[in-house]
Amino acid sequence: MSGNTFGNILRVTTFGESHGAAVGAVIDGCPAGIPLSAEDFLHDLRKRSPQGAFETSRQEPEAPEILSGVFGGATLGTPIAVLLRNSRARPHDYVSLKNVYRPGHADFAYEAKYRRRDWRGGGRASGRETAARVLAGTVAKKILVHLYGKESSPVISVTAVEVAGIPCAPLEWNSPLPSPIHKKLTAIKQDGDSAGAVLLGRVSGMPRGLGEPVFDKLEAELAKALLSIGAVKGIEFGSGFALCRMLGSEANNIEEDRQGGTAGGISDGSDLLFKLAVKPVPSIAKEQQMYTTDGSRTRCSIAGRHDVCLFRRIIPVAEAMTALVLADTALRQRACV
Amino acid sequence: MSGNTFGNILRVTTFGESHGAAVGAVIDGCPAGIPLSAEDFLHDLRKRSPQGAFETSRQEPEAPEILSGVFGGATLGTPIAVLLRNSRARPHDYVSLKNVYRPGHADFAYEAKYRRRDWRGGGRASGRETAARVLAGTVAKKILVHLYGKESSPVISVTAVEVAGIPCAPLEWNSPLPSPIHKKLTAIKQDGDSAGAVLLGRVSGMPRGLGEPVFDKLEAELAKALLSIGAVKGIEFGSGFALCRMLGSEANNIEEDRQGGTAGGISDGSDLLFKLAVKPVPSIAKEQQMYTTDGSRTRCSIAGRHDVCLFRRIIPVAEAMTALVLADTALRQRACV
Amino acid sequence: MSGNTFGNILRVTTFGESHGAAVGAVIDGCPAGIPLSAEDFLHDLRKRSPQGAFETSRQEPEAPEILSGVFGGATLGTPIAVLLRNSRARPHDYVSLKNVYRPGHADFAYEAKYRRRDWRGGGRASGRETAARVLAGTVAKKILVHLYGKESSPVISVTAVEVAGIPCAPLEWNSPLPSPIHKKLTAIKQDGDSAGAVLLGRVSGMPRGLGEPVFDKLEAELAKALLSIGAVKGIEFGSGFALCRMLGSEANNIEEDRQGGTAGGISDGSDLLFKLAVKPVPSIAKEQQMYTTDGSRTRCSIAGRHDVCLFRRIIPVAEAMTALVLADTALRQRACV
Amino acid sequence: MSGNTFGNILRVTTFGESHGAAVGAVIDGCPAGIPLSAEDFLHDLRKRSPQGAFETSRQEPEAPEILSGVFGGATLGTPIAVLLRNSRARPHDYVSLKNVYRPGHADFAYEAKYRRRDWRGGGRASGRETAARVLAGTVAKKILVHLYGKESSPVISVTAVEVAGIPCAPLEWNSPLPSPIHKKLTAIKQDGDSAGAVLLGRVSGMPRGLGEPVFDKLEAELAKALLSIGAVKGIEFGSGFALCRMLGSEANNIEEDRQGGTAGGISDGSDLLFKLAVKPVPSIAKEQQMYTTDGSRTRCSIAGRHDVCLFRRIIPVAEAMTALVLADTALRQRACV
Repeated sequence: MSGNTFGNILRVTTFGESHGAAVGAVIDGCPAGIPLSAEDFLHDLRKRSPQGAFETSRQEPEAPEILSGVFGGATLGTPIAVLLRNSRARPHDYVSLKNVYRPGHADFAYEAKYRRRDWRGGGRASGRETAARVLAGTVAKKILVHLYGKESSPVISVTAVEVAGIPCAPLEWNSPLPSPIHKKLTAIKQDGDSAGAVLLGRVSGMPRGLGEPVFDKLEAELAKALLSIGAVKGIEFGSGFALCRMLGSEANNIEEDRQGGTAGGISDGSDLLFKLAVKPVPSIAKEQQMYTTDGSRTRCSIAGRHDVCLFRRIIPVAEAMTALVLADTALRQRACV
Repeated sequence: MSGNTFGNILRVTTFGESHGAAVGAVIDGCPAGIPLSAEDFLHDLRKRSPQGAFETSRQEPEAPEILSGVFGGATLGTPIAVLLRNSRARPHDYVSLKNVYRPGHADFAYEAKYRRRDWRGGGRASGRETAARVLAGTVAKKILVHLYGKESSPVISVTAVEVAGIPCAPLEWNSPLPSPIHKKLTAIKQDGDSAGAVLLGRVSGMPRGLGEPVFDKLEAELAKALLSIGAVKGIEFGSGFALCRMLGSEANNIEEDRQGGTAGGISDGSDLLFKLAVKPVPSIAKEQQMYTTDGSRTRCSIAGRHDVCLFRRIIPVAEAMTALVLADTALRQRACV
Repeated sequence: MSGNTFGNILRVTTFGESHGAAVGAVIDGCPAGIPLSAEDFLHDLRKRSPQGAFETSRQEPEAPEILSGVFGGATLGTPIAVLLRNSRARPHDYVSLKNVYRPGHADFAYEAKYRRRDWRGGGRASGRETAARVLAGTVAKKILVHLYGKESSPVISVTAVEVAGIPCAPLEWNSPLPSPIHKKLTAIKQDGDSAGAVLLGRVSGMPRGLGEPVFDKLEAELAKALLSIGAVKGIEFGSGFALCRMLGSEANNIEEDRQGGTAGGISDGSDLLFKLAVKPVPSIAKEQQMYTTDGSRTRCSIAGRHDVCLFRRIIPVAEAMTALVLADTALRQRACV
Repeated sequence: MSGNTFGNILRVTTFGESHGAAVGAVIDGCPAGIPLSAEDFLHDLRKRSPQGAFETSRQEPEAPEILSGVFGGATLGTPIAVLLRNSRARPHDYVSLKNVYRPGHADFAYEAKYRRRDWRGGGRASGRETAARVLAGTVAKKILVHLYGKESSPVISVTAVEVAGIPCAPLEWNSPLPSPIHKKLTAIKQDGDSAGAVLLGRVSGMPRGLGEPVFDKLEAELAKALLSIGAVKGIEFGSGFALCRMLGSEANNIEEDRQGGTAGGISDGSDLLFKLAVKPVPSIAKEQQMYTTDGSRTRCSIAGRHDVCLFRRIIPVAEAMTALVLADTALRQRACV
């Protein structure tokens, strides 16, 4: 109801502010008997950790603590609470930003809504919150394996197909950057600016008949899940906006994969396919115009540790949200036969 | 849970199959004391009714009956059930399609999910279901007026900005078709084919501070709402996919309206702006290849009464879904101060 | 959210006012492929219909119309909307009660909440609404049979074990009244008064391991379901209030059935057992003191057609609510293994 | 869905096993701007802490840590996560109980449901979980004060009116025990046995018009909330079971307070009144018969640290659950005018 919980049967609630004590997730509705340990979270967390020249220098150790829901190395069927301490918080970086609303950030909107805000690095609206989603995504993927088996479980992959306006062959989270992109990001960084990207999501090995009709169509749930990531501003399924320009007879061609893997909101067994628009990182070093809390304007640059382009770090978050939708949908499915 | 209910505080459940007895909506969570009569639904229903040469000849009388929730001309605060009888159903049109899966339709997916389906015109997956959404949208708009007053209530408008691949000045539901578009649709119709469109949604007069954080961001809720419309295959907010190609300093420009009216998922008081990709109507007269229920392929053309392009008829549906999100969000808002 | 929907996976929304056009239910989450026809509702509806000297003379024909969700004699997995027209409404009976608050009724409370009310026979707060619950209960029982098979499905029975203060051997809905009870009710009726009852609920053949932990314990869900029936003012499980007076060693005796069939909120395979306190019918012919809408007091008797004791007519309602809890719990169960 | 979340707008999720790392609560939907610190939880936690001769010797320090949702001494409107470490866990006490099902406990039922269980002190089914509820209750009471003001906020009090079968003048959580009760409990303790109690709940200063109709009646929500406490086996409102023996004209008497403060599920402004049946503590030192995991029977006594009678320690838990219902209901109310 307050926007902090995702899912229907698999319900994940995240909590935490960027520079508060911790972020974490309570993952409820996970079936009993799934092997799980704190180490299992590390791989996905590492994908989200900043690396290289174009990502923030805030290096959280990301040592997840399981507080509940696991006993004897496996899930109990009870809520799994997992905690990530914020040990590299530097709230003083933000003191100078108390009285301005950073453009492209939620500062103004949160204050309009709640009449107060945690100005330390965006508080709850910070990308830091997505670390908790990644925790939940790890569990969601384990649920899929539990339900479908290691061999037949759907495989989720998100890659970048365009960075800073430059199209590219699909980049994994750990692919080396193509030279033109590296060059462009270097220039952007030197200029104190930032860049966006286009991501491609694919789920292969999709079971048929998954998804709910009418309001909770699989695309609708995925769209919600993925547009709930702060930097994502658009999504299209299958041929998407290009589909609007085709004739019905072209769009219907059963030899092609233009619908994105669903019909009537329910999977048809072909791969799920979607593209995401990731906007440029709003925190930039470059001086820019912004509003102050008293309604005037000022020119200001944003201190703190930020990414130049976060396409890599969004990959595990988008994968996590996709996994949450699929695991929840699969659990919902069991109730309908 | 089963996909037939939308909303959190304002909860709408639709029911009905295309060629069954009726479609309808139960609208729960509407505040008491809002003037409402059966006539109030007619304007929005008329916008959705087929008209002209490029839309289906199935002309339902669309005479809504209010079964509950209204007394003495105003809402009681109890569930409002509204019924639309299916009086022009022609199930026999579909008998010949019992044994094929129409491409671009939900036939195969529904059967994979439920192991049965109502083959009469798509059953529950038919566009007919959206008539019930339009009923609910009428109530949602009245709730917005109730909450914000006639003068300050947000104004929702959806127009077409591209039809059959031809860009155009925004077309309202009742605008005459520009001549090139008319010509192209005529040719497409003669060929027994169909076309898609791009719609532009705008909400002006948005209150500030509306929307929930994290998972239920305003864009996330709108994306879900709008992608739950069968023909919609993509959405972008503000500059959307174009935003990915900008620098942070451009995207952040506070003189421009590139974010689509939200930050951190919460409205900032500027207009909400989004674009929708509407795929071509999947039912076409032209013979096309499709699968049969026994797994072979056949060539077949689809009888029944269908639209060539449904951009007009989607307009009130998209407006209804937008209104449902806004009214629900506004009601949620009251709980958070 | 607004109190008109019950259940988690099997979700039932009822609508309708006592003297409005109709009451009805939308039953969502019912699995596909369960045989269902309008006739299937008649048996349970008949149990709820008034009969004999101590029940209201309002004889609704109770001819349910299925509007959706059923095709070819079986459920589709889509929402099942069922309608009961109010054909014997007599709103004019209540005109004289517009300006008073009937004691024991919801008149005052509804007006305090909604600032308006449908004064025709209690509107939404009328016992008429329970006819829609009975419709849903019929479907819930079919779901149980679908899930567990005809032989192993849990069997729900509610009987009266005390009427008008007189204890009795369990009375079924159609048992003849023991003579002392008949005599007492006759006297009460002649006096223009009304009486209460104690009901006993039993579910035999309970599967083990059903129910959710912590907040949604099986007793908690049953208590909510049964106390949502207007006339029910108390519930106890197993030995209930008597249990408080036992020692732990007595209560724990595994030879006896003192816990009511659950432990930690989850069924242990023994019979579920509970007792319900049913208050006397609040509408009485006898003149009584009540408040008027302008805050003064008056003495007034209540016209309209009412029951002297509704223990019989509550039986199918209590069975329906029990069936809804069990079917929903069974469907929830599938998600947890 | 999995039973670990309570409430509609104010949503509380608890997590934690009795002898795991911690128990805690995520409290979502709390309005922004309410003063809150870790100290605020101590008073209610202390009421729940064991004291005296008849309560467990497990003395948890109960030092709550607020992980999120509070900034500058007040709530942010974001989820409030609060943690209580289990620092006095002694899982080895339970090793000998791994292979038996303690009578009156959830051991068998949990294993039937989840096919595994945390045998350390009941795991999730332990009374330890209620400490997390008390945390949430503290916040709920603050919300009530925030909404209604310190002077006009409803006041919740739960007292004991019968202990070990001996009726008494209402005992507060810190009242000295009447001598006959003290004597009886001493004897019961010496015998290695345990006792139950009857509690009386009262909410004075109730606003009028609070509560939802039909399925979510105030009594229904309270019944669910209170019967979700493991030891509670019955509830009655107003005159409850005694009401069944009255005539309608007696029950309706507007001079008396027999309905428990509601009509049609909505508050009428008089005090809410209910009684709770609290069963004897199931863990007893006395040897008793129980089932083993291999299906045979054994005689066994239960080690560990347990209460003789937990009427005192349930008081703050019952108050917390009542506060959660009232705060949630009050927040729901805002949506309906």
